[in-house]
Amino acid sequence: MPYITLNSAEPGIRGLLRFRPETGRPLSELAEVLLRGPSTLTRGERELIAAYVSGLNDCQYCSSSHSATAAAQLPGGMALVDQVRADAGQAPVSAKLRALLAIAAAVQRGGHQVTDEHISNARAADATDLEIHDTVLIAAAFCMMNRYVDGLATIAPDDPAVYAAGAQHLIHEGYVPPAAP
Amino acid sequence: MPYITLNSAEPGIRGLLRFRPETGRPLSELAEVLLRGPSTLTRGERELIAAYVSGLNDCQYCSSSHSATAAAQLPGGMALVDQVRADAGQAPVSAKLRALLAIAAAVQRGGHQVTDEHISNARAADATDLEIHDTVLIAAAFCMMNRYVDGLATIAPDDPAVYAAGAQHLIHEGYVPPAAP
Repeated sequence: MPYITLNSAEPGIRGLLRFRPETGRPLSELAEVLLRGPSTLTRGERELIAAYVSGLNDCQYCSSSHSATAAAQLPGGMALVDQVRADAGQAPVSAKLRALLAIAAAVQRGGHQVTDEHISNARAADATDLEIHDTVLIAAAFCMMNRYVDGLATIAPDDPAVYAAGAQHLIHEGYVPPAAP
Repeated sequence: MPYITLNSAEPGIRGLLRFRPETGRPLSELAEVLLRGPSTLTRGERELIAAYVSGLNDCQYCSSSHSATAAAQLPGGMALVDQVRADAGQAPVSAKLRALLAIAAAVQRGGHQVTDEHISNARAADATDLEIHDTVLIAAAFCMMNRYVDGLATIAPDDPAVYAAGAQHLIHEGYVPPAAP
């Protein structure tokens, strides 16, 4: 049960966005730009980075939600997502994505954990400055979202079908709710 | 030197907000609502939470910047900020703020580190649901900002005068830059 009294029964971050729309709006806009805005990384790749970091932070709601959203947009589906979450270094992804996932894992441990070697590995795999920037910010943003969701003890459904349905909604409608009339 | 080539010499998060305005805008709006929007916590108290978490994350730019901004808005000034950052449990702040700082420190360690006892201590000191919510989100947001700033190895000036001047700018102008004409 959440630590605070929310104004809906919505699980995870959805209940928090509804409880405090003043902060919900910029949080949703940040997710929209990072995960769905114009980018040379596919939407599936960016959701995979979000799912991976959320798993490292042991956030059930966010890791389930973004795993489902990544799986629905990646040719490898949930099998690939599971492989990345189990061992990103050995998973069958491009060399560039593997290097970016290593940067994301370093960010999850702490900002100072990103080294020159992480960056040079990413550059050797043709990652651009903007791809490196966005990977760091996606990983950092999920260190926020995961703490927000679990720090207030929000509900995380167990049923995978809930997350699969949520993924379809996100893929079609995006992260930013329509403005109030 | 930053890991990526920025389009300005601005230090810390300022250079990142300028480099990627699409993400800079929601990040700035989030900071504005959390640290300066309507609240029963003073602006000084909220900046103190940001400074405290940034110190726990060892982020020189953010801890210096928000310490200066807190000090300029708290009757206890920098002496109080230094006491809180050295030992929040013993610093001369209200029982409510002490309990909220303990929640913030738990969030910094991880979302699952916030316990029923942290919450009941805050309630016993008359903290509201919204104050608990905002404390968790401020702490979580600085776990993002700190990782973003240090994960890209941005510059942190050593001169305290730089941060004191920045604090005056933030206090008078806020976190959201004027929209481009």
